[in-house]
Amino acid sequence: MDVQYMKKAVELAKKGWGKTRPNPLVGAVIVKDGKILAEGFHSAYGGDHAEVDALKKIEFQGEGATLYVNLEPCSHYGKTPPCTEAIIRSGIKKVVMAMKDPNPLVAGRGMNLLKEHGIEVISGVLEKEARQLNEIFIKYITTQKPFCIMKMAMTLDGKIATVNGDSKWITAEDSREYVHQIRNRVSAIMVGVSTVVKDNPRLNTRIKGIEANQPVRVIVDSRLRIPLDSIVVETAWKQPTIVATTEMAPEKNIRQLEAKKVEVLILPDKNGRVDLQQLMIRLGKKQIDSVLLEGGGTLNYSALESGIVDKVIAFIAPKILGGSNAITPVEGKGKSFVKEAFGIQNLTLRSFQKDILIEGYIEGKD
Amino acid sequence: MDVQYMKKAVELAKKGWGKTRPNPLVGAVIVKDGKILAEGFHSAYGGDHAEVDALKKIEFQGEGATLYVNLEPCSHYGKTPPCTEAIIRSGIKKVVMAMKDPNPLVAGRGMNLLKEHGIEVISGVLEKEARQLNEIFIKYITTQKPFCIMKMAMTLDGKIATVNGDSKWITAEDSREYVHQIRNRVSAIMVGVSTVVKDNPRLNTRIKGIEANQPVRVIVDSRLRIPLDSIVVETAWKQPTIVATTEMAPEKNIRQLEAKKVEVLILPDKNGRVDLQQLMIRLGKKQIDSVLLEGGGTLNYSALESGIVDKVIAFIAPKILGGSNAITPVEGKGKSFVKEAFGIQNLTLRSFQKDILIEGYIEGKD
Repeated sequence: MDVQYMKKAVELAKKGWGKTRPNPLVGAVIVKDGKILAEGFHSAYGGDHAEVDALKKIEFQGEGATLYVNLEPCSHYGKTPPCTEAIIRSGIKKVVMAMKDPNPLVAGRGMNLLKEHGIEVISGVLEKEARQLNEIFIKYITTQKPFCIMKMAMTLDGKIATVNGDSKWITAEDSREYVHQIRNRVSAIMVGVSTVVKDNPRLNTRIKGIEANQPVRVIVDSRLRIPLDSIVVETAWKQPTIVATTEMAPEKNIRQLEAKKVEVLILPDKNGRVDLQQLMIRLGKKQIDSVLLEGGGTLNYSALESGIVDKVIAFIAPKILGGSNAITPVEGKGKSFVKEAFGIQNLTLRSFQKDILIEGYIEGKD
Repeated sequence: MDVQYMKKAVELAKKGWGKTRPNPLVGAVIVKDGKILAEGFHSAYGGDHAEVDALKKIEFQGEGATLYVNLEPCSHYGKTPPCTEAIIRSGIKKVVMAMKDPNPLVAGRGMNLLKEHGIEVISGVLEKEARQLNEIFIKYITTQKPFCIMKMAMTLDGKIATVNGDSKWITAEDSREYVHQIRNRVSAIMVGVSTVVKDNPRLNTRIKGIEANQPVRVIVDSRLRIPLDSIVVETAWKQPTIVATTEMAPEKNIRQLEAKKVEVLILPDKNGRVDLQQLMIRLGKKQIDSVLLEGGGTLNYSALESGIVDKVIAFIAPKILGGSNAITPVEGKGKSFVKEAFGIQNLTLRSFQKDILIEGYIEGKD
């Protein structure tokens, strides 16, 4: 039964998608005698934590009940008083949690505090799912660098555009809608300047029926050749837009972009290109906990080579385009031998109406 | 229950994989009062048909029983007497079949004959699975051209080899073993001459513990530049090997190949390349009912363009290689616009130990 209640907690946690940042997604279920007394979740940064949200519903009367929560309850004063305090006060006799606080400096403290107060604590229930749920939070809290998701959308023969450059649309509508769901959950979207030059995209979140989060747009542009009349530049006044460049950027272009409310970041270069590790550190300092990398192939390869990519999500459309000169999702110099390939682990598969989604994590990352 | 018994019949039919050619795969189950009395299958060309194989086990005493069979029983004398005769004689009262004989000239005859003798006949149970089981037979009997399966094995970023040409191994061992299972079931394997020049492959079937069928090797080589010392040429004396070429082939090369037991087919050309439709017609005349197309990218594109491909099987390995010059599974000129892409329908997904297998059928073919 523990697993069932924890699944419920994870589901509740998901209601906070995109709104709790930089806090984690947390859900809580209070159970007594096989009956759910209350449910709660962390709905937004600054709001009640999941445990307190649930406890409030039973007026903090948890005598003899069990609390299920997908993350170790906090034991420190932040925006709100510590959850451990509320739990102890309520009379909860047992806490089942999926995982410890990933921050090594605080991990285990909440758990120990509860134990000291005679509360039974079980940890590790549904841990894998819980870690995946909060993969962004875990990466950011432990490294201060954003969790980077590389998105690809290609044909079954590995093309993201035809020999002509046509790419509308490789994937079907429901797949593209799903990408907007992901944009709604991340802090930033990142593309190379070639994508801006070629496609002039909006790089915003469009979801029918809801007012979506608009992620920060990050354009990697080592020589600052982004067109001043591109949509991203023209709309920088209403959607935060960062252009990451190097010392090679002409001073005049920087001033022109800044006049249009674009934030220009000057970063060290690596072989003439923006050092992407340095860029991630800078974005992390700006509270950007997650980046959705949306290509093209040259930036994708640099991102993999520089080690910033954590996760890959690849849509495969049931189409074949052919073309020895058609564009593939990862280009650049490329590896010379198969044994040097970037490995992807923990694959999951999902069928969309027409397309297939393959998700996985870059091997050798945590 | 009909579906359950038909599933059993389909499973039995599969025992004949690779051995019944050009006959179909057929399994039969005889049931009375909810009990299976006998099972049978067509085990090899020239041997008993599934219905007779099953009936023999009950000494043709089928009084009041039901026969499940995945294909309409035959009503004509071929290598063996018609199955309808044996069924009628046995006293079977009901026949449940998955599909009619695909040959439009005979379809329905067996069924009608049974009905005329007072036997109840039901058709269409598990028809989709039954059609897929005999997709090779159906294509060949109705068009006299082989069923063509295009195999691809690539990384998640759509590469079949690195920029260096290294391709050992993109996919894992169990995936490669599965390819040998398919080779064991088809009449022929087809590659372009570039694959022979580059990889010098054996193009035979290697399956641990069994003596596998060795498919006919077909090499498409419009100018006859296949090396005389390549493995396929050197072993042509023991595994049938066809080189398909055009009028451009030098007479001397033809004689040298023939001296090594290679069969050289001179075919019409299409823009300087072997006309693949004509090649399929010629192979069909040689009783080749199925061809496994194993690349490379140039031949794959020509095959798609010429309309010979029926099915695609694509292994995707959880690896990323990158490389704007790395080789992709379908090359050639390529389509200019996404809307012109070859569509793939009826997708199925399968997880191997490491790789993913996507199978589907080319849209607009039957």
